[in-house]
Amino acid sequence: MKNLLSVDDLDVGTVQQIFATAADMHDVQRREVKKLPALRGRTVVNLFFEDSTRTRSSFEIAGKWLSADVINISAKGSSTSKGESLRDTVMTVCAMGVDGLVIRHSASGAAHQVSQWVDAAVVNAGDGMHEHPTQALLDAYTLQQRLGSLEGRHVAIVGDLTHSRVFRSNVKLLGMLGAEVTVVAPPTLMPSGIGPWAESAGFHTSYDVDEVLPTADAVMMLRVQRERMSGGYFPTSREYTVGYGLTRDRLAVLGPDVPICHPGPMNRGLEIAADAADAAQSVILDQVSSGLAVRMAVLYHLLAGEETSA
Amino acid sequence: MKNLLSVDDLDVGTVQQIFATAADMHDVQRREVKKLPALRGRTVVNLFFEDSTRTRSSFEIAGKWLSADVINISAKGSSTSKGESLRDTVMTVCAMGVDGLVIRHSASGAAHQVSQWVDAAVVNAGDGMHEHPTQALLDAYTLQQRLGSLEGRHVAIVGDLTHSRVFRSNVKLLGMLGAEVTVVAPPTLMPSGIGPWAESAGFHTSYDVDEVLPTADAVMMLRVQRERMSGGYFPTSREYTVGYGLTRDRLAVLGPDVPICHPGPMNRGLEIAADAADAAQSVILDQVSSGLAVRMAVLYHLLAGEETSA
Amino acid sequence: MKNLLSVDDLDVGTVQQIFATAADMHDVQRREVKKLPALRGRTVVNLFFEDSTRTRSSFEIAGKWLSADVINISAKGSSTSKGESLRDTVMTVCAMGVDGLVIRHSASGAAHQVSQWVDAAVVNAGDGMHEHPTQALLDAYTLQQRLGSLEGRHVAIVGDLTHSRVFRSNVKLLGMLGAEVTVVAPPTLMPSGIGPWAESAGFHTSYDVDEVLPTADAVMMLRVQRERMSGGYFPTSREYTVGYGLTRDRLAVLGPDVPICHPGPMNRGLEIAADAADAAQSVILDQVSSGLAVRMAVLYHLLAGEETSA
Repeated sequence: MKNLLSVDDLDVGTVQQIFATAADMHDVQRREVKKLPALRGRTVVNLFFEDSTRTRSSFEIAGKWLSADVINISAKGSSTSKGESLRDTVMTVCAMGVDGLVIRHSASGAAHQVSQWVDAAVVNAGDGMHEHPTQALLDAYTLQQRLGSLEGRHVAIVGDLTHSRVFRSNVKLLGMLGAEVTVVAPPTLMPSGIGPWAESAGFHTSYDVDEVLPTADAVMMLRVQRERMSGGYFPTSREYTVGYGLTRDRLAVLGPDVPICHPGPMNRGLEIAADAADAAQSVILDQVSSGLAVRMAVLYHLLAGEETSA
Repeated sequence: MKNLLSVDDLDVGTVQQIFATAADMHDVQRREVKKLPALRGRTVVNLFFEDSTRTRSSFEIAGKWLSADVINISAKGSSTSKGESLRDTVMTVCAMGVDGLVIRHSASGAAHQVSQWVDAAVVNAGDGMHEHPTQALLDAYTLQQRLGSLEGRHVAIVGDLTHSRVFRSNVKLLGMLGAEVTVVAPPTLMPSGIGPWAESAGFHTSYDVDEVLPTADAVMMLRVQRERMSGGYFPTSREYTVGYGLTRDRLAVLGPDVPICHPGPMNRGLEIAADAADAAQSVILDQVSSGLAVRMAVLYHLLAGEETSA
Repeated sequence: MKNLLSVDDLDVGTVQQIFATAADMHDVQRREVKKLPALRGRTVVNLFFEDSTRTRSSFEIAGKWLSADVINISAKGSSTSKGESLRDTVMTVCAMGVDGLVIRHSASGAAHQVSQWVDAAVVNAGDGMHEHPTQALLDAYTLQQRLGSLEGRHVAIVGDLTHSRVFRSNVKLLGMLGAEVTVVAPPTLMPSGIGPWAESAGFHTSYDVDEVLPTADAVMMLRVQRERMSGGYFPTSREYTVGYGLTRDRLAVLGPDVPICHPGPMNRGLEIAADAADAAQSVILDQVSSGLAVRMAVLYHLLAGEETSA
C-alpha cells in the first residue's frame, strides 16, 4: 500500500491489518506517555484546501504521537490564492522532502490526481463528494469493536446521501466486510443513478427510515448541511427531523445495543436528537478516538520503514 | 489541583508552590538548551475561540519546552462555525486523548463549564469578562520578584475595570497574597456593584488616579479597548489620557522603584505614555517572560505525573 | 554572522560556508530519517505580517529537522490588529526567550529595524520591495550546483523588477559570486534610478529579452503580480507574454543546459509557458529543495552553539 486514496485501494486482509495496528495504537492512546518512535525523522504535511479542524487535528496528533514532524498548510493564504495551479502547489510542497501528504480538497478525484504527481504517500482526507477513506475505516473499526464482526450485520446509513463522501466510502467498506447495508434518504437527497450502483454493489436503498430501523444492527446518521435547506432539498428543518431524524421516538425502536454513529459535527435537534447523541449506545465519541488510532495505523503502514511495517 | 479555572481554585500555599516552580522554569528560559522532558508524551490543546496570539504563543512555547505535543485549534474555521455546540466541540477534541486543554472563550464561565464535561486538565486562558488566572499569576509573580513580598504593599490597578478579566483575577490574587489594592476607573468604566465586593474582599475603589499614585508601591495599567470610545464610555481618547493615563507627569510622581505593569497589547499614548512604558521601572517585558515561566509551572503541576508533581 | 537581513551582510567566504553546510543538509533531506539534533532546545519564531505559505513552511520544516521548537505567528489575528506597534509586538515575542526570529513584513527595512531591538538572531524572510536574502542564496546555490561556478556566467533576470525583492537580493549576490547579470523588464517595470545602480554594481539592463536570452547561461523569470495589470504597468497579459514571457519560442533559443529558475508561485501562461516550466532544464523544483537546505544552513550558522558552527 503506497497511498490511501479510496476504499477501493483496500482489501479485507489490508483492512484487518490496519485494524490490528489501530488496536495497538488505541492502547498507546490510553497510556500516560503517548509517544512511539516509529516515524521519527519522517515529515507529514496536512494540506487542507477546505477547513476541517476535526480531521486535521486528528491527523496532526496521529503524526506527532508517532514522532513525525507535522506541518499544517491551509489553502487560505496559500499560493493557490495567488493563482498557482494545484499541481504546482503540491509539487512545491513535496519538493521539500515530504514523506506523507494528507490532503483535503473540494474537487472529487483531487487526491488521486495528486498521487500521480508525487513520490510522497498520499492520504485522501476527503475529496469533494467522492471519498473519505479514513472516515470509513474508523467507522467500520468502531462498529467491529462493538459488534465483534460486521459479517451479516445490518447497517442503516441515514441522511443527505447526495452530498456525502462519508456515505460513499462507507458503503463500499462495510460491504467488503460482509455487512448488509441499507441507505436511507429523502428522494431529493438520494443520489441519481444509485439504483444500478446499489444493485451491483449489493446494498439496499429506502426512503422510509421507520421501515429500516427495526432491523438495524447499527445506525449511522449523516450530517445535514444547513445550507441545503434553502436549496430546496427539503422545506424546513422541522420536516427533515420528522421524516429522517433520529428522534427520541425512533431511538425507542432501536435495540439497546444498537450502536449509533455520526461523523460530526452534529446538528443536535436536526438529524439527531440529544437523547440519541448522548445515549449509552451512542459511539460518536468512540468514533473520534478510534479515528485517531486508525489514522496512526494508516500513517504507520504507509510511512514506517519496510522492516517494521506489517 | 486538577484544573486552573479561577484564582478561587488557589490558596496561598499552592500559589507559592507554582511560583517556586516558575522560578526554576525561569532559569531554564535563560539556558541555551530550553527543553525539559517533564511532559513528554502528554498532549496539550490550545482551543481558542477568541484570537490571542500572545497568550496562545506563550502556552504553546511553555508546552513545547516541557516536551509536550501541542496542538493549536482556532475556532475560526472550526466545527463551531458549522453549528456544533461548545460541548460537542470540546468532547470531540478531548476524545482524541488530550491531557491538557487550554481554553479561551468569549463567554464568562465557559472554562468552568468545560471542566465539568472532560477528564483533561482545563486551564482558563480568559473567559469573557470573568477571569484570566494565569495572567494574575504572572502579574503577582513579576511583582513579587521585584518587591520581595506583596504583604502590605499598595498596588494600584487603573483603567477600564468593567471589561477587564485581568482586573477581576488580579484583585483576588493580590488580596490573597496580602497586598492592599486600589482600583481606579472613570465612573463609566467602574463595574456596577463593585462597592459590596470591594468591601467584602477588602480592596479600595477610586475615581482619582492622582490621589492614588503617590502611595502606590506598584501600578498596573489596563488596556483600553478603543471600540469603547464610541460606546459613550468616555468622550475622546485625549480626555481619557488626561484623566486616567500614565502620562509623563504622573510618572514623575511615582517613586523610581515602583514597578509599572501592563498586560499588553499597549495603546501607547492612550492609557500609557511611551516614557512610562519604556521607563527603567517598567516590568512590562518581565511580565511576558514571567508569563512563560508561570505557564510552564501551571502545565507542570497539572500534567506531570503524581510522583513528580509537588 | 548574527543576523541575515540583507545580502550586504554576506561576503564570498560566508556564502560558500553556507553553501557547504547546505550541501550537507541536502544530503539529510534525502535520508529516510530527516532529523539532526543541532538546534535542540532552541526556539525559532516565524513572525509573518504577510502571508507566505511557501517560505513559512520552508523555514518551519528547516527548523524542525534541526530539532528546534518552531512557533508560527501570523499577523492576522495578532496584537498588531489591536493597534500594537511593531516594536512592542516584536519585543513581546522575543521576551519569551526566542533564539531566532524569521520575519516577513510589507515594509522595506522592517527586518533591519527589528534586529536593532532584539537579542534574537533575525532572518529577513522578505521586507517589502527591498530584500529576500534566503531566496537569493537558494537561487545562487541552485545555479552553482548546476553550473559548477557562477564566475563569468551570464544570468538573465526577466520580469517585474520594480516590485521584486527577489531581483534586488539576487543582483547583489550573483554579482558577488562573479556572475555577469542582465536584468530585463518593460520600461514601465524598470525601477527608476536603476541606471546609476547598475553602473556602480556592474550589471546590465535591457528592455529586449530576445537580445539577452541567446547569451544567457541561466534565466530567472520573475512572477508577475496580476494586480499590476490594472495598474497600467502593461496593457494585457497577452502583451506581457508576447513581450517578456518565457514562451515556447524563446525556450527554443536557450541552450538545452541553460537552467530556468522561477521563485514561485508561477503564473503559467503569463510569465512562463508550461513547456518552459516543465522542461528538463527547469530547476524550479530544485530551487524549492535547495531552499530548505539553504534555510537549514542559515539557521544552523545563526543558532548553533559556537563550538559547532563553522
